[in-house]
This record gives sequence, structure tokens and C-alpha cells, in this order.
Amino acid sequence: MAYVYLLDTTLRDGTQGEGVSLTVADKLKIAQKLDDLGVAYIEGGFPGANPKDQDFFRTANDRLHLKHAKLTAFGSTRRPSTKAEDDAGLQTLLGANTPAVAIVGKAWDFHVTEALRIDLGQNLDMIRDTVRYLKRHGREVIFDAEHFFDGFKHNRAYALATLQAAEEAGVDWVALCDTNGGSLPDEIREIVATVVSEVRVQVGIHTHNDGELAVANTLAAVQAGARMVHGTINGIGERCGNANLASIIPNLELKLGYSCLPSRQHLRQLTSTARFVGEVANLVSHSYQPFVGHSAFAHKGGIHVSAIARNSETYEHIQPELVGNERRVLISELSGLSNVQSQAEAFGISVVGRSDDLRTLLEKIKELEYLGYQFEGAEASQELLFRRTLGEFQQPFEVFSVRVDTDVQSEADVTSQAIVKLGVGGEIVHTVCEGNGPVNALDAVLRKALAAHRPEIAHMHLTDYKVRVLDEKDATAAKVRVLIESTDGQRVWRTIGVSENVVEASWEALVDSMNYYLAIVVPQRELVSST
Amino acid sequence: MAYVYLLDTTLRDGTQGEGVSLTVADKLKIAQKLDDLGVAYIEGGFPGANPKDQDFFRTANDRLHLKHAKLTAFGSTRRPSTKAEDDAGLQTLLGANTPAVAIVGKAWDFHVTEALRIDLGQNLDMIRDTVRYLKRHGREVIFDAEHFFDGFKHNRAYALATLQAAEEAGVDWVALCDTNGGSLPDEIREIVATVVSEVRVQVGIHTHNDGELAVANTLAAVQAGARMVHGTINGIGERCGNANLASIIPNLELKLGYSCLPSRQHLRQLTSTARFVGEVANLVSHSYQPFVGHSAFAHKGGIHVSAIARNSETYEHIQPELVGNERRVLISELSGLSNVQSQAEAFGISVVGRSDDLRTLLEKIKELEYLGYQFEGAEASQELLFRRTLGEFQQPFEVFSVRVDTDVQSEADVTSQAIVKLGVGGEIVHTVCEGNGPVNALDAVLRKALAAHRPEIAHMHLTDYKVRVLDEKDATAAKVRVLIESTDGQRVWRTIGVSENVVEASWEALVDSMNYYLAIVVPQRELVSST
Repeated sequence: MAYVYLLDTTLRDGTQGEGVSLTVADKLKIAQKLDDLGVAYIEGGFPGANPKDQDFFRTANDRLHLKHAKLTAFGSTRRPSTKAEDDAGLQTLLGANTPAVAIVGKAWDFHVTEALRIDLGQNLDMIRDTVRYLKRHGREVIFDAEHFFDGFKHNRAYALATLQAAEEAGVDWVALCDTNGGSLPDEIREIVATVVSEVRVQVGIHTHNDGELAVANTLAAVQAGARMVHGTINGIGERCGNANLASIIPNLELKLGYSCLPSRQHLRQLTSTARFVGEVANLVSHSYQPFVGHSAFAHKGGIHVSAIARNSETYEHIQPELVGNERRVLISELSGLSNVQSQAEAFGISVVGRSDDLRTLLEKIKELEYLGYQFEGAEASQELLFRRTLGEFQQPFEVFSVRVDTDVQSEADVTSQAIVKLGVGGEIVHTVCEGNGPVNALDAVLRKALAAHRPEIAHMHLTDYKVRVLDEKDATAAKVRVLIESTDGQRVWRTIGVSENVVEASWEALVDSMNYYLAIVVPQRELVSST
Repeated sequence: MAYVYLLDTTLRDGTQGEGVSLTVADKLKIAQKLDDLGVAYIEGGFPGANPKDQDFFRTANDRLHLKHAKLTAFGSTRRPSTKAEDDAGLQTLLGANTPAVAIVGKAWDFHVTEALRIDLGQNLDMIRDTVRYLKRHGREVIFDAEHFFDGFKHNRAYALATLQAAEEAGVDWVALCDTNGGSLPDEIREIVATVVSEVRVQVGIHTHNDGELAVANTLAAVQAGARMVHGTINGIGERCGNANLASIIPNLELKLGYSCLPSRQHLRQLTSTARFVGEVANLVSHSYQPFVGHSAFAHKGGIHVSAIARNSETYEHIQPELVGNERRVLISELSGLSNVQSQAEAFGISVVGRSDDLRTLLEKIKELEYLGYQFEGAEASQELLFRRTLGEFQQPFEVFSVRVDTDVQSEADVTSQAIVKLGVGGEIVHTVCEGNGPVNALDAVLRKALAAHRPEIAHMHLTDYKVRVLDEKDATAAKVRVLIESTDGQRVWRTIGVSENVVEASWEALVDSMNYYLAIVVPQRELVSST
């Protein structure tokens, strides 16, 4: 079975997508997830153009321990008038200290003479020098031939000459880019086949989705002999996006008989990876996205259900479990119950002989998920839900009322004030606090109210706060989901709140976080320190 | 130039999409818009299965005056044990009184014996009788061969026999359905070519997007000889959706040399049609959707901009005007004076001899971007910033103070109340309103305050609300960025707000949206209607 190398460029080309903006911490989280999925190369950024990407590579080299992927930095060929060793961009590229580098260069004659305003031979020299220089520094080198397909159509000999220049200099891969994203599968297939017969190095494909054909174009290129595929998770990227790896991977693995992940087990992480990236990039993933979408294997009752019970092939093109997704009408209560049971046991709750309670819990989970809760990213809230429903929880404090006021007098003069009344340690505490926003004020007032009876609250703090609008078409009347991450310096836990009111959703997640800390983290820590 | 007949099934198969629900009035509006675009057939519904669709056809026959399209009703072959003339479904289908009908029948032997539990010959009789009966009643008949491609792979002779049965009975079209949506372009091409050589009637193609290949599969079928294409606007439909006509049409017209609309002038309505359907179906259209998306021709600064100024082909696969979309130059931190200048001119602001003002503006943009603003997704706020800074803006109202209170008494009892004091039309308005969240309350109170002096505010509404936490590590004290999308049913505009206080950031984006509508959209609309 032929192997196809995946180069994921979510962290580089993906961030060119409108509205995509990732912090260094976001990028590290995504890189780890991509390595877990098993991609061969992670293109992490363009350090020569973006100081944030320099930070990313520095931190990644220290902190990430990649099992499968080679970290790859992106840059461009040297400038026309400098030597490679004097080119600032190439120095920064080497400074990223990655095992592999990708460099983009011109392959369309028109762009050489018009955009760079140099002659065609000079561009070939730039490609040759750059590749040679990077190879001398021990890097695996991928040459991204920009506008290759358009270039080939205008001046075939010159487009091929750019690849040959890279090849002469010892390049490891030439990646053919459909930069404008408008090529058709037949053209791609024919041109890739020509390239494969004309060069000796391995060939890659890099497509964009401007014609809604990026996946088809990529598959056509692989069938014509390309062995490296560039793409992004969920297809995010400039204009209409890059080729979508979340669709390309299963098409290659399950339909065309290629291998591109370490094992079939890895393929099962596809759906969770796609959703994780959507969540971190704060881009709504489309429920009808092929393979990984929430609706991708949703069957509307009727005859479909019984037909599927007999033979799922009758109404499904693949088995959803293969990509870690699930069929939606057929979630059997039995398999659901066994999941809930094993989860309860993982929390240390004994459930022997309590199948009625488990059934109640399962109903409750389904209801909450229907309302927009997603416990995958909020295990602390999940544990609280299990403990409350199964009667294994003692509430450390009780909330009677909360109120937040925000005054905007002018842009420079905005204050929020929170007032809370709660019961803790047998007393009623009524207190007030300011913050630079309503949620910050709620956090502050809750700590203040708890401080006298539960001074240990000072040892925990919030480290992350995310807001996600559900059903965006309802605009300001839509539900929001708030995720909060907290830590006491040792453990990290996450909680969730869902409401049409962002203040209430935040409050719910905040209260859960403090409950979890006081009722679960603190007693376990005391247990550890007393033994 | 070969003509390809478009059958739009947005109103039938499209409504199978999760979350899609259209009233009769919605369907009428969409049908009119599809006829304006110039599709050949509008499949309006399944009257035998859905009484709402019976209403639709009744009303459509009375009220719609279609210039290009034939209204088409959908049904299925007669039941196994009845005669066609006694079959209730077929009576309802004829009762829709449409010039054309589409009937679905089984083409996969397995489904005949397993789902229908009849023998293979009986199914052929059902197809033959049904087509003959509908032809006798003067209808143009399209036979939708369900699961045709899977059926062909399992039992080629039988799949072809179903088409031949329809042909013998006088069918006008056989449409080959990739019901499970998992076929690959090569398979489709080969099978369609075989069918075209084996039957004498014209062939159509009906694909689904489960492999993210529906557009490619459709194009492959047309290249193999199919002359009717089934699809939906924006690709809405069950599971992962149907083939997306908004991408298929320009690929056929502009790239493959087929004709499928009455004229190139009609093609220019593609973008507005796609956005209209998204709006009426209440499905957020994706900004990066190929051809018709808001980001489809958005360029980020630097060398791209100057290259495009010289020759747009260098970074665009087609000219955006051909499909009624537009080029957008994204102003970002990297951009220079020339970007700002060309942007100002695009807004219709004369900047000749004002390079000092432009420099001030550029400084301001950079400062705001440093603070977390991102104008690439918020052109309306960008235009307001340009106009304010260049002295080309008259504020329609002035805000003196705003206050929002949120009370959480219990999970079920949460209210937000907003109080605003503003100046409009020479008066001071002081008013209060409730909402199901602080932002919803702000939206409501602002409309209420403006209603007396600017009643046109009722014609715009918010369609999307997004919150992004910047610097997430600061948790609840972090800055947030709010993006709001609004529409008056024709134009769509986006605004932005950034603050450490989510209420203030939302308020800023809301006020910008209403300012933009009142000061820019309304006067332009009046200009158009008075000429």
C-alpha cells in the first residue's frame, strides 16, 4: 500500500484565513493534537514574516515531544540581490531549528518578470542557491512551486525548469501549488503525471478550494503519483481555504487504498481532532462537514433505520466509527449505559446495582447535550454532574442571588459591579466587588464572599476563558457556551456553562470551577499530604 | 456550446438538511429568485409526503410567473400492489399540476429485495407503469434512479435494466443518483459514460457531498455526457448536503465551456441568489464559500495588492464580477499607504492631495490593530473609521450613557435590563428595555430609542454574533473581540468592538452597525430608488 505523507499547514496557511487568529498557546495545543493524529509534517509558521511564529518554534522545540511529525518552518527563496548566507529571511528560517523547511519560490514566468522584476535565469539561481544552502545546513527541504499549474499552462518549460533547479540543488520534495485555487481535477492529474515523469525527486500537491474542488484536485494528484499532500484541518485558509485534510485523509485511507496515518486506530481520532481545531480556532465547525460533522451520519428515522440495522452500507458510504464519528439515530441505550458506567467508575463512584440511577444520568446528559453542553472539554463539570445526580456530592456553598451592573459612561470609563448573596459555613454572606468586566467582577465577588470560611480559595485561579456562540443565526438572542480553565498550580480543570445570557453562562462555569476545587481537588490534596 | 439543464432541488432535497425549515412563503420567494437566476427546473417539493408542499404548488401555480424554469413536483414509483391510476401518491403528484415531475425508484437490486421485499421484475414493472401513466397525463418525466452508482457496482445489468424500463415507457430523463454520496469522480465518469452509451434518453446527475466531492462528481458526469444537473443553492441538504449549484454553475460556465443559464448577465446574480437563499433558509452562509462567499476574493496586503492592480489574473482564478461578487483588499498591520488609498477610493472618498490625512488614518489603523481590532472581518466598522478620520461622516445619533443590569435569581429566572440615554433628531431619548441577555437587551433598547426618529431601523437586524477572547491566559480579565453581522435583507455588513468588558465591546459593535445602516446603507438605497 503506497504511503502518502501529510503536511499539515493549519498553523501557517490556515492562519491566513479570514478571522483566524491563533496565539502561541493555541498553536502548541493544535500541534500536539496533530502529532497525536499522526501527520508526517507540521508546518508551524513563517518565522521570517512573523515574530509570533519565532516564539512558537522556540517554545515548540522546548516543550513539544513529537512522536510522528517533523516540525516544519516556512520561508521563501533568497532575495534577488543577496547571497543565501546573507539573507535575513533564511537566517530566521534556520533559527527556527526545525528538521524540515518549506521554501516557496516562483514557478510562473510572468510572476518572475512582473512581480520580482528580475530575469528568468536569476529566479532559477535563487531557487538553486536557497535549496543548496538549506541542505548544507542539514535540513530536509520542500520546494513549494508557487502558481505551478498556472505557470505550467503559460510556459511549461520554465515551470519544469524551476523544479529541476531545486532538484539539482538536492531538494527532497517539490510541492506543486495551485495558488489561485481554480484548477480542475483533469488538469491537475495530467500536469502532475507529466511532472512525475520528468523529475526524480518526490512530488507533493498543495491546492486551494476556490472552485470547491480542492479535495478532488488533491486526490487526482495522488492518483497521478504525488506522494505528499498539503492541507489544513477543516480546510481553513485564505479566501476559500486550503484542501481539507479532514476529508482527504479518509478518502485516501478508506476509498483509494493509500496509507497516510500510522494506523487505523489513528484514523479514529479524525473527528475529535477536527472538532478540537475548530474549537481552538474559534471557528464554528459545520455540522454537515463531510466525515467529521455532527450531521455527517445523521439518519432521519423511518426505513433508513431498519435498513441500517441490517446493513449499514445501505445508507452510509463508510462506517462512522472508522473516523471517530457516530451514527446519530442509532445510539443504543445499552452502549450509552455502558459508557456512563465506565465513566462513573473512573470518577471513583461505585455504581454496582444502580442501573436505574445510571439511566437517569444518561437521560440528563442527553438532555444537556441537546441544550448545547459539551462535556468533552469540561471534565470537571462532567464529574460534578455525575456526583450530583448520583448523590455523591456535598455542595461547599449555596448561592441565593447574583446581580451584575455595567455602566458605560464613555469608552474610557466603563465599570462592572457584582453583588452576591451566598451561604457558606452556616452563614449568609452578602458582598459586592468591582471588576473590569462583568465576568471579572463575578470572579472577584465570589472569591471575596468565600474568603473568610474557605481561605484556600486564594490558591486557585482561572487560566483560560472562552466564549462560543451557538446557533449564530439567532445573533444576540443566541445561546452561548462558556468554557473556563482553572488551576491550583498542580492540577488543571475545566468547567462549562450554557445560557442565552453570557453573564449567567459565565457564572455557571465559575461556580462549577470553585465547587470542583473546594469539594474535589482540596480533599484529594489533603488525602495525599496526610498519607 | 453544449447546454446543461439545471434542476434546483433546494426546495425539496435541500429541506432535508438538518435545521432547514421553510414556510410556503419562504419557498415562493426562493422559487422566484431561482427563476430570476435562470435555472431550467425548480423541484418544489414532495406533495405526496408533505401537505405543506401541496399548498406550495397550489399557491405557486396561482402566483408565480416563471420566465425560465419549469416547476417540478417530486414523487415515487407506484406502490407494489396497486395500479398507477389507483396510487394515492401519484394522484397527489398529478394534483400538483406541474409541467414536469420527478419520480424516484430503486436501481440497486439489494434495496428491491431487502427494503421493498419484492422481486426484481416487479420493480421494473413499477417503473414502467409509473412513467407510462405520468406521460399519458402529459407530464415531462424525470426518473431518479436511487442508489444508481452503488447498484451499478453490485449488479450492473439490473441497474441498467431499471433505466431501460423507464426509457421503454417514454421517460424524458434518467437521473443517476449517488444517494449515499460516497462515490469518487473516476467511478462517476466511467459509469455515466457507460450509461450514456447504453440508453437513448438524456441523462442527469444527482450527487451528495459525503466525500466532499459532490461538485467534482457532478463535473465529471457532465464531461461524460450528463446534460441535467441536480443540486441545491449553497449545497444544503441531508447529512453533508447536495451538490452545490453555486459552485457548479460557474465551473460549468466559466471553466468547462458549457452553458447552463440564459446569459452571462444571469450569472452575475449568482452571489446575491446564494446569499438570499442563505438568509431565507436562516442558514449562515460561510464567508469562505467558493465563488459567492464574502472572503472568496479577499486579498491580504503586500505584493498581492500591487500585482492585482496590474493584472487580477495573477492572484484570482476568475474575475469576481462575473459571478456578482467583489474583490476585497484586506487592510492589515502589514498594509501600506497604497492599500489605504485604494480602500478609501473604493468607499468613494476622494483622497487626492490628502497624503497627510491618509498617514494619520494608517497610524490609527495600526494602533487599533495593536489593541486587538481586526478590520478584515468588519468592513462596516472600517468604513466608519475611514469616514470619521477623513471627516466624511455625520453621526446619526449620539450616546450619552448606557447601563445594563443582570439579575440571576435562579437558573430559570435570569433577566437583563438595559438603560440608554441618547441624542437623536435634536431630542434626548432616555429609555429602558429587557432582553434575554445583556447584549440582547442592548440591541432592543437601542432600537426602541431610535424608533421614533429613525423608523427605518426596523428593516435591519443582526444575523450573527461572535465573541473571541484575546490573550486567553488573562482569563476573565482578558480583552474580548465581538463581531456582529447585520442585514437589511439585501446587504450584509459586519462591525467590531474590542474591550476588556464584553458588554462594552458588544455595545461598540452594535452602535457601529446601526450607524452604518442609518448613515451609509439607507442613503445609498434611497439614491438607487430615486433614480
